[in-house]
Amino acid sequence: MESVIDLQLQHRSIRKFKKEKLSEEVISKLIEVAQHTASSNYAQSYSVMSITDPHKKRAIADIGKQSYIAESGHLFILLADQARNAAIVSEEGGATDIFSSFDKFFVGATDAILAAQNIVLAAESLGIGAVLLGSILNQLDELTTILELPPLVVPVLGIALGYPAQEPNLKPRMPEHLMHFENAYPKWEKISNELEEYDEIVTEYYSARDSNRRIETFAQMITDWSAYTHPGRLRMLDYIKEQEMSRF
Amino acid sequence: MESVIDLQLQHRSIRKFKKEKLSEEVISKLIEVAQHTASSNYAQSYSVMSITDPHKKRAIADIGKQSYIAESGHLFILLADQARNAAIVSEEGGATDIFSSFDKFFVGATDAILAAQNIVLAAESLGIGAVLLGSILNQLDELTTILELPPLVVPVLGIALGYPAQEPNLKPRMPEHLMHFENAYPKWEKISNELEEYDEIVTEYYSARDSNRRIETFAQMITDWSAYTHPGRLRMLDYIKEQEMSRF
Repeated sequence: MESVIDLQLQHRSIRKFKKEKLSEEVISKLIEVAQHTASSNYAQSYSVMSITDPHKKRAIADIGKQSYIAESGHLFILLADQARNAAIVSEEGGATDIFSSFDKFFVGATDAILAAQNIVLAAESLGIGAVLLGSILNQLDELTTILELPPLVVPVLGIALGYPAQEPNLKPRMPEHLMHFENAYPKWEKISNELEEYDEIVTEYYSARDSNRRIETFAQMITDWSAYTHPGRLRMLDYIKEQEMSRF
Repeated sequence: MESVIDLQLQHRSIRKFKKEKLSEEVISKLIEVAQHTASSNYAQSYSVMSITDPHKKRAIADIGKQSYIAESGHLFILLADQARNAAIVSEEGGATDIFSSFDKFFVGATDAILAAQNIVLAAESLGIGAVLLGSILNQLDELTTILELPPLVVPVLGIALGYPAQEPNLKPRMPEHLMHFENAYPKWEKISNELEEYDEIVTEYYSARDSNRRIETFAQMITDWSAYTHPGRLRMLDYIKEQEMSRF
């Protein structure tokens, strides 16, 4: 068997899946992995939703504008969840205001995102492909209705999983000097020369992959990315507040 | 070699380290693993700071109120980073306002947290122990000064690493029915009976570990946790805004 690190270094997002669904056994194992991920103060302030209803899956694919969400072998939505904690404390007769704080939202989001990465890697170790879905945040109000979420629960990330029907190339990552610093954050002028080299690597990667692809450099890709954000994404903080979080 | 999933199911946070520092080679490998983690839109909107200056390490241990941070074999701080993207887009002549949105903060935080989990597991696969540090958020203003962070950069999580000098037991996790749901979030009344069973398991775990430990149930532990939050943690959203993020 290959080592953990070898597997991590081979990560590719998979967006095209075979028709085969994930078995109950596999899903159960992935949940067990999520459960054993570190969580802040051992509080496990997150939950996982499995979307098996084809109508709900299709509706979420529409929110994400990604048909492969509907075509995946399994769909998880990771939830920052302080509703369970608040219910527990309420039964104990304690005050629950703190669960409405942005801090507790962020604790729950962190727990959920850590678990998501562990699920992805566990799946990959079983030959299953995965893609993380930030796109579920495009329309949080609609997603809340679909998933029947109570206050204090906020979706943070989706994972579409399935047996791969594609073999994408490994995308070249940013050089270490652009993203790993020691003791202090450097001035941009001191590291920006590294970008030119990376721009060339990205250009090479895309031209080898698809000669019709117009993105030519990393800088151009980031600029294109910055020019359009789904309007719903800009509502996220207001949405969090409406879920009775971040009132502090 | 054991499987990826076996390793994931054995995760324990390590808070007592041998004096041995992590080698340059190991640190470099962990950064490579971080780099190969999935990131939103391939933008890699995060950075990693290595704290090697003993004074800075001590100052961060003081912020976290955890001496083992200073005693660790290596300390990473994961940063949600839109400063690099804004610099790149600015050089391309594009508008950079979007990088001040809460959405882009959350994209960067998600990228950073996913990378953090991959670093933890890679370290564990090499026999290195790790503990994730939410406690760095206790005093974000001070941390910003220590790390000389520019606007659009927000610390989200620390990782203290080192060769383990303790062998903690595996903490029993919440039963699946309390945290894994299908298609819709259940009413608390429908699942709360599972809590009793879990309370008993947690009680058993703690009494086997340390007979002086006063926490008796999971419910009591969550209630205690909810009763005290470091005041600095309640400033997080204001701090994010002051880093010129979440202005939308």
